[in-house]
Amino acid sequence: MNDLLLRALRREPVSRPPVWMMRQAGRYLPQYRAVRAGSDFLTMCRTPELATEVTLQPIDLVGVDAAIIFSDILVVPEAMGMHLTLDEGVGPQFPSPLRTAADVAKLHPVDPQDQLGYMLAALRMTRRALNDRVPLIGFAGSPWTLAAYMVEGKGTKQFAVAKKMLFEAPDVAHALLDKLATAVGDFLVAQVEAGAQVVQLFESWAGALGPQEFRTFALPYLAKAAQRAREAGVPVIVFAPGAGWAMSEIAAATHADAIGVDWHTTPHEARRLTDPFSVALQGNLDPCALYAPVSEIQRRTRDMIQAFGPVGHVANLGHGILPDMNPDHARAFIDAVQSWEWTEERLDAAKRASGRAPQLAEIA
Amino acid sequence: MNDLLLRALRREPVSRPPVWMMRQAGRYLPQYRAVRAGSDFLTMCRTPELATEVTLQPIDLVGVDAAIIFSDILVVPEAMGMHLTLDEGVGPQFPSPLRTAADVAKLHPVDPQDQLGYMLAALRMTRRALNDRVPLIGFAGSPWTLAAYMVEGKGTKQFAVAKKMLFEAPDVAHALLDKLATAVGDFLVAQVEAGAQVVQLFESWAGALGPQEFRTFALPYLAKAAQRAREAGVPVIVFAPGAGWAMSEIAAATHADAIGVDWHTTPHEARRLTDPFSVALQGNLDPCALYAPVSEIQRRTRDMIQAFGPVGHVANLGHGILPDMNPDHARAFIDAVQSWEWTEERLDAAKRASGRAPQLAEIA
Repeated sequence: MNDLLLRALRREPVSRPPVWMMRQAGRYLPQYRAVRAGSDFLTMCRTPELATEVTLQPIDLVGVDAAIIFSDILVVPEAMGMHLTLDEGVGPQFPSPLRTAADVAKLHPVDPQDQLGYMLAALRMTRRALNDRVPLIGFAGSPWTLAAYMVEGKGTKQFAVAKKMLFEAPDVAHALLDKLATAVGDFLVAQVEAGAQVVQLFESWAGALGPQEFRTFALPYLAKAAQRAREAGVPVIVFAPGAGWAMSEIAAATHADAIGVDWHTTPHEARRLTDPFSVALQGNLDPCALYAPVSEIQRRTRDMIQAFGPVGHVANLGHGILPDMNPDHARAFIDAVQSWEWTEERLDAAKRASGRAPQLAEIA
Repeated sequence: MNDLLLRALRREPVSRPPVWMMRQAGRYLPQYRAVRAGSDFLTMCRTPELATEVTLQPIDLVGVDAAIIFSDILVVPEAMGMHLTLDEGVGPQFPSPLRTAADVAKLHPVDPQDQLGYMLAALRMTRRALNDRVPLIGFAGSPWTLAAYMVEGKGTKQFAVAKKMLFEAPDVAHALLDKLATAVGDFLVAQVEAGAQVVQLFESWAGALGPQEFRTFALPYLAKAAQRAREAGVPVIVFAPGAGWAMSEIAAATHADAIGVDWHTTPHEARRLTDPFSVALQGNLDPCALYAPVSEIQRRTRDMIQAFGPVGHVANLGHGILPDMNPDHARAFIDAVQSWEWTEERLDAAKRASGRAPQLAEIA
């Protein structure tokens, strides 16, 4: 098996970083659009054959080093009893958003085998189809991010309605977040049992919270869900875009194996905030940089790898790949990572840049 | 005159910080909504009597220490020949967005006295009506932020179309940004001549750019516009939400008198990144914190003032006040600042926290 991802997540020596892309099974691929033309998004999520098909596409077509199961973070609130719609052009919505303590009390506990069995089936089917070519990543939304959607009813710029609950009715928010942490933790454990070899938690709306609210309403519940997944025995990646400042706190609270780095944070800054031997970093090319000419994509990708250094780096974008991206440009990114080699000269340069020579020397 | 704002911007001793709120002339005030019911937003901008009326409302009704002229950053692209619509619920749009070098070439040079004379008239009228009660702030959008709107056609989540231009056609982007820097600089100088005693540059879409693009496409043009305004002889405030990491670079490049701090950055972190004797800081209570009970608003406001310390702080929100905010809660914020006093004890605590005792001792 190509186990580069697992080795990088364990901060073991690798000759080049593994690479995958957030939203790699997506609309930028004509082959994905062909499947999507025949089924709506939620039907694809709920049909293991279709989910498996599009999950495998980027492995075959783009050559990434990991598969991530095709699904959506909002399947968990749906399993808790919220009606979810995913209309083309409008994005996901909960037409009856959750607003009161009574609304929170009405949410169902989640039995993943029951309400989310379709995703577990997709994981099992994909794992068999992969036949150990590359590792399979499962995922879930983190409690604050799911709560923000459930209260707001849809994605918004500021999540002011959800934040209003935090300030006006913090007890209701905590009750909701606690239910979500349990559901998400259970779901991740079930995903591991179904074959996920790595799991990623998406704290997609981390950036909607200031430091004090992040520490109160996001981090404890993120940590609870992440730790349950870790106990299930697989590496855990936490991605909290818009909260680069919180990177070291997230690593400490969640015991994650890797922290996702968005494109706002430079690799050097991310390294300054974390210890490469304690936690790996995943990221962080700006998805819009793939609009640049191929030679520029190659240059930026190489600069990024050099800056993250040789220990504990998973190459990725700093956000999801954009739907109108040219697949050749995505391949240029993947190829640039896969043709990288940590030569003596590059290792020396990384050592000099990191100011961590004695530690890097251990592995070089 | 209540010149607290001017003194704080010059980093002179003050017994308490001055306070105003971004979007203080806005929908949270029933008296604003009454004016707005009779005229659309652009008509209000273009009618000096109406702009003056709503500019004065928060001075009289909420008691802030500064007035900021009622207008919109998109009046500059409109003056350059772009058709602007501002429909209720949809937000500002350019129905014919700018995409090519030919589109950029067609933009008019701006004579502020001519195309933007209505805002200059509003400044003169407001200045007379204020009768030196509080200082009057003028403002403009910065070049990158205006360019992002002009290329995108509207506000979006990621500004991917505008960023695509930066990566695919950087020369076109630079030509556009250079025209905008000239227009914005001229406009700010004209605002000062019309009576603005302070100007603020809004780099509202700073957060759409990673560090490399921010340094290439935003900062040089922001600096050019800010420096022209500074030469006109008034203090300049630069607010670049979502780019807290760039605070010290912005201060150095623009020679701004103050940097706005968004609510993602803690006051302590902002102080760590800047020198209170070189540049003042403005901010940064999360506007959503005004949803909290009054006692909590008071507590958070006091914590914020203490954390920014006694030198060079202008109290404000970290983003615009929200339209559904209770005006009593806005007043609670203003009152909490205005009842603050820098006592010996509080000065001592600030000195201990800052680790800058010798410098703070100079003024205490």
